[in-house]
Amino acid sequence: MGVNSNRIDNLPDNGTEANPQHQTTITMESIDLPAHPHHEVHRVSMPPRQTTLQKLKQRLSEVFFPDDPLHRFKNQTWVRKLFLALQYFFPILQWAPKYGIGPFRSDLVSGITIASLAIPQGISYAKLANLPPIVGLYSSFVPPLIYSVLGSSRHLAVGPVSIASLVMGSMLTESVSSTKDPILYLKLAFTATFFAGIFQASLGFLRLGFVIDFLSKATLVGFMAGAAVIVSLQQLKGLLGIAHFTTKMQFIPVMSSVFSHTDEWSWQTMVLGGAFLVFLLTTRHISIRRPKLFWISAAAPLTSVLISTAIVYLLRSKAHEIQIIGHLPKGLNPPSSNMLYFSAPYLVLAIKTGLITGVLSLTEGIAVGRTFAALKNYQVDGNKEMMAIGLMNMAGSCSSCYVTTGSFSRSAINYNAGAQSAVSNIVMSIAVLVTLLFLMPLFYYTPNVILAAIIITAVIGLIDYQAAYDLWKVDKLDFLACLSSFFGVLFISVPVGLIIAVGVSVFKILLHVTRPNTVVLGNIQGTHIYQSINRYKEALKVPSFLILAIEAPIYFANSTYLQERILRWVREEEEWIRENNENTLKYLILDMTAVTAIDTSGIETIREIKKLLGKRSIKLVLTNPVASVMEKLHRSKTLDYLGLDGLYLTVGEAVSDISSQWKYSV
Amino acid sequence: MGVNSNRIDNLPDNGTEANPQHQTTITMESIDLPAHPHHEVHRVSMPPRQTTLQKLKQRLSEVFFPDDPLHRFKNQTWVRKLFLALQYFFPILQWAPKYGIGPFRSDLVSGITIASLAIPQGISYAKLANLPPIVGLYSSFVPPLIYSVLGSSRHLAVGPVSIASLVMGSMLTESVSSTKDPILYLKLAFTATFFAGIFQASLGFLRLGFVIDFLSKATLVGFMAGAAVIVSLQQLKGLLGIAHFTTKMQFIPVMSSVFSHTDEWSWQTMVLGGAFLVFLLTTRHISIRRPKLFWISAAAPLTSVLISTAIVYLLRSKAHEIQIIGHLPKGLNPPSSNMLYFSAPYLVLAIKTGLITGVLSLTEGIAVGRTFAALKNYQVDGNKEMMAIGLMNMAGSCSSCYVTTGSFSRSAINYNAGAQSAVSNIVMSIAVLVTLLFLMPLFYYTPNVILAAIIITAVIGLIDYQAAYDLWKVDKLDFLACLSSFFGVLFISVPVGLIIAVGVSVFKILLHVTRPNTVVLGNIQGTHIYQSINRYKEALKVPSFLILAIEAPIYFANSTYLQERILRWVREEEEWIRENNENTLKYLILDMTAVTAIDTSGIETIREIKKLLGKRSIKLVLTNPVASVMEKLHRSKTLDYLGLDGLYLTVGEAVSDISSQWKYSV
Repeated sequence: MGVNSNRIDNLPDNGTEANPQHQTTITMESIDLPAHPHHEVHRVSMPPRQTTLQKLKQRLSEVFFPDDPLHRFKNQTWVRKLFLALQYFFPILQWAPKYGIGPFRSDLVSGITIASLAIPQGISYAKLANLPPIVGLYSSFVPPLIYSVLGSSRHLAVGPVSIASLVMGSMLTESVSSTKDPILYLKLAFTATFFAGIFQASLGFLRLGFVIDFLSKATLVGFMAGAAVIVSLQQLKGLLGIAHFTTKMQFIPVMSSVFSHTDEWSWQTMVLGGAFLVFLLTTRHISIRRPKLFWISAAAPLTSVLISTAIVYLLRSKAHEIQIIGHLPKGLNPPSSNMLYFSAPYLVLAIKTGLITGVLSLTEGIAVGRTFAALKNYQVDGNKEMMAIGLMNMAGSCSSCYVTTGSFSRSAINYNAGAQSAVSNIVMSIAVLVTLLFLMPLFYYTPNVILAAIIITAVIGLIDYQAAYDLWKVDKLDFLACLSSFFGVLFISVPVGLIIAVGVSVFKILLHVTRPNTVVLGNIQGTHIYQSINRYKEALKVPSFLILAIEAPIYFANSTYLQERILRWVREEEEWIRENNENTLKYLILDMTAVTAIDTSGIETIREIKKLLGKRSIKLVLTNPVASVMEKLHRSKTLDYLGLDGLYLTVGEAVSDISSQWKYSV
Repeated sequence: MGVNSNRIDNLPDNGTEANPQHQTTITMESIDLPAHPHHEVHRVSMPPRQTTLQKLKQRLSEVFFPDDPLHRFKNQTWVRKLFLALQYFFPILQWAPKYGIGPFRSDLVSGITIASLAIPQGISYAKLANLPPIVGLYSSFVPPLIYSVLGSSRHLAVGPVSIASLVMGSMLTESVSSTKDPILYLKLAFTATFFAGIFQASLGFLRLGFVIDFLSKATLVGFMAGAAVIVSLQQLKGLLGIAHFTTKMQFIPVMSSVFSHTDEWSWQTMVLGGAFLVFLLTTRHISIRRPKLFWISAAAPLTSVLISTAIVYLLRSKAHEIQIIGHLPKGLNPPSSNMLYFSAPYLVLAIKTGLITGVLSLTEGIAVGRTFAALKNYQVDGNKEMMAIGLMNMAGSCSSCYVTTGSFSRSAINYNAGAQSAVSNIVMSIAVLVTLLFLMPLFYYTPNVILAAIIITAVIGLIDYQAAYDLWKVDKLDFLACLSSFFGVLFISVPVGLIIAVGVSVFKILLHVTRPNTVVLGNIQGTHIYQSINRYKEALKVPSFLILAIEAPIYFANSTYLQERILRWVREEEEWIRENNENTLKYLILDMTAVTAIDTSGIETIREIKKLLGKRSIKLVLTNPVASVMEKLHRSKTLDYLGLDGLYLTVGEAVSDISSQWKYSV
């Protein structure tokens, strides 16, 4: 360390003096190598020796503990360690002791604000999942309480969300009818929620959180837009007052349902729904334009519910066509652990539904949590959040709740309303509790059409044109993944759409690996820098050398291609040399800096290239292999095969050392 | 070019003089930068501008035409072009005009040698595929003739091979019994062969040859060993003389078949089979030890057939237990295009079987062709070979042949016997023709047990312990892929075994992408080189800087991980600085040399890291982004976001330029 500080301290003194000599300096430096080839050329060193077990341990700790979660326990007494561990599992212990009246005032306001949104949305999303509306309210009561104890986000507003509701509804309805067999359907919904929770908690517990990373942003943009379109179209049922509607979730059956039942269209419903949809969309628009007026869009759904209920109540003798929610039972969540369903024939369906809704809701919850944590500069631990969300769903499934997670829209309003901690979730729960205990009769005359309008307003924000356009601009293949998931969801089904989109994303990675770039490097005059001659006009080829950078790991999937491609570069270079009467090609230097891994096929390719070049009297030199590649070259004895002058630390050293040897040998 | 030749010409003159100044030189060079920051610091340039269409074109030509197959047509007259095109499609036109009596003598000897092997192997492999033995001989007649016209390998010996025969037999037998419904079975075999041919030819024609690269060597080593074990065990049927045997191809049913029919074991068969198996294995062993004695193992199978047939003929009144081949029809291949079967319910089975046998036989044929081409230093064009093999199978399916390809064992003998061109295949075909026309009655008394012994001797060579051990030594995950395909084939089924092995190989690629290495770099004193401080003791940290090399493309699949990991490096560095009272951390330099690609999630991660570091007053600098990354940084306006001093060409320039600015600003 001293040496370097020293160097940097010297900078200003010599800097100005030395300047005139600069050009000479570099020339001199590159030419003094031959005199002391063994002093000036740096050897490529092997990585520190490790046993297989040590390597496995290191690899596993990188895979599962990249954030080194135990670092806070280092050098602590065991009492302190215990306390830290409790704090780790119950983040409420971190903030509760410091909690005061100031933050509470903010949390009270924001809690009431999100409750006024959560109640109508809860009822609506439960309808979206083909569940009784009351289940949506139950799900806005228990899970937020549990999250406020276990969760580490201060702004996440927990409850049912549109995507997970839609997916659960569409997947269960394909096998079981919610109208013909409502008890079985409810059982399956709770069971799926239970599995979703198990799955989420185990992802967190087993530290496999990276699984959700495979849903790339591109995939999610397309998926959410597709889901929003399909959900909005589904709401035409409510908006038009159609009684007989398909239970399917694809574009074509939904549209044909809409237009094959034109006789059922009800103008009263359409007028009422249309008016409130316009009202809700306007308030949403105002809040987007002026974020300070967030409370307008936050209060609008409850206002719409109250006003429309009053209208329907007043017109109850005349407007028979308008479908209403009807009777809702008063009281708290009944226990539902006896309704979990672990036997054939629907167990597989419940597991599958749980898996997909679990992953999707986890993705939403984690992303929302991270977004607001980044805005307020605190950390949200992904794996711990997964455990919190998972446990909350497992508890929910035993108390008549279906899948819940952090909702983007409600969290944004929570944040804007000034929430300071998870107490806002507790306030919301209490408001829902009051509703459940005393206010249920109020919803008797609430028209279904208003729920449809609320759903449309909520999901319309999921269609993100701008993000899709950015994808198109920056990365065409990401845009393709986005389109596939959009159309997959719209025309085929939710799981298939997701699988296609993940497939496209993985295919993209494989394509990059299968057909990696190879770049011809040249020397930037007067420096040690070797750069692509295609990109840098200053970079010039060095006679008798062909220098190639390989920009990918060398795997079975690309080794044949790379061999062909490298030999083609050599062939083209030789043709060019013949045409221009240049010095014959003597050395092929492969810059391995970007070859971040190699497998046995790759090693064979290197040997093969060496052999084939040998027949044409061209020598092969590798420069700067990374640690793992170096180790495999050594183990496979390829280093011995390459010979002493077959490996250098940098392209610059290779070129100057080799050319100096020529001069001395001539 | 002149500049560089100049530099290199100067090397010896100044080299010796300049040496004493060397240490100073470098210090001076690194310190004179501040005086002319804008002259000495190289700008990172954008790749040459291209439209989306141009980029797509370039990308597609890299994907499909990496070998630039049209380069030989450049600057030629159109007559010459036509002739070259004909030569391209019919390689026989390349070598036939120059063919003479010398090569013919060699080809005659080698052709007869491989015919003596091809005839017993053809009969045996047809039995392996549960086909009539005569089909094996038909398949050794037509396809070699076609290959000799279309193929570009000089040493490939074409005919039925063990792996493809096994796979076809096991896949078809699962649905159709070859004994109960032999005509349907035969139809399906020809249809599968037709689809295999179609599939192979289209892979070549569409230049999708890289598909077979996904069968890595590791996968194939395991697969072939598993197949060899299962085939050998199956031969216990013949060797023990068991009449009632399972048609399944898994370890457990085969072994239980062997031991549940001990009453059917025939001592006569066992003695005969055992004796010849020992004889064949001994000759094989001799030929392996002394490659010059290759003819011993080449002649052994036919010798065994002749001797065993004679023995059985002589003992025909006493040895009733020994099963014999029986009547074989004389005459040439009958046409079979009328037997192709394109309707339900077995069409899917035929396509699936064709696909898998097609891929496997293609892999074998191409690998064998490339091996011998490399030995004799000529080129085999993969895509063209695929078309040749595909057309040969399509033609074969219309002339009573089943799937054929280049056989490894026979090609090796062909090569050792001195084959010079595809004429040895023609000679072999003629020998088979003579057999078909006149010698069929000779095989009436040939015992089945001898075919079992021939098959075992042939497949035993597919078990490559040494290769498996090398995999274990060099790459544990490759070894895992090898094991999975071995046990997958042995205990589940051929297609599942292959799918598992390909899955493991792809998983390996994804794992590398999901959890990439990040390496802390330090400066090697007295140079511009920055290398891993973990690997190079000479590499020292530069105070106030943290320099990280990211060793992978940044994708959705690793962007969250990388963000966490990089922030952890920063945290650990800051802790280390606090403990050691060092200069505070001011700059994080990310060396992007090995970041060979980035997607939209990756770009967002870079911006996020910049933002989070900004809150801690640490600046982010990127060095040396590759062309495609640079372009995406530009398009997404991330370059503007990084600012003027956020991008350098090399780590060295970044460090010296930034530290010089400090000195001047202080």
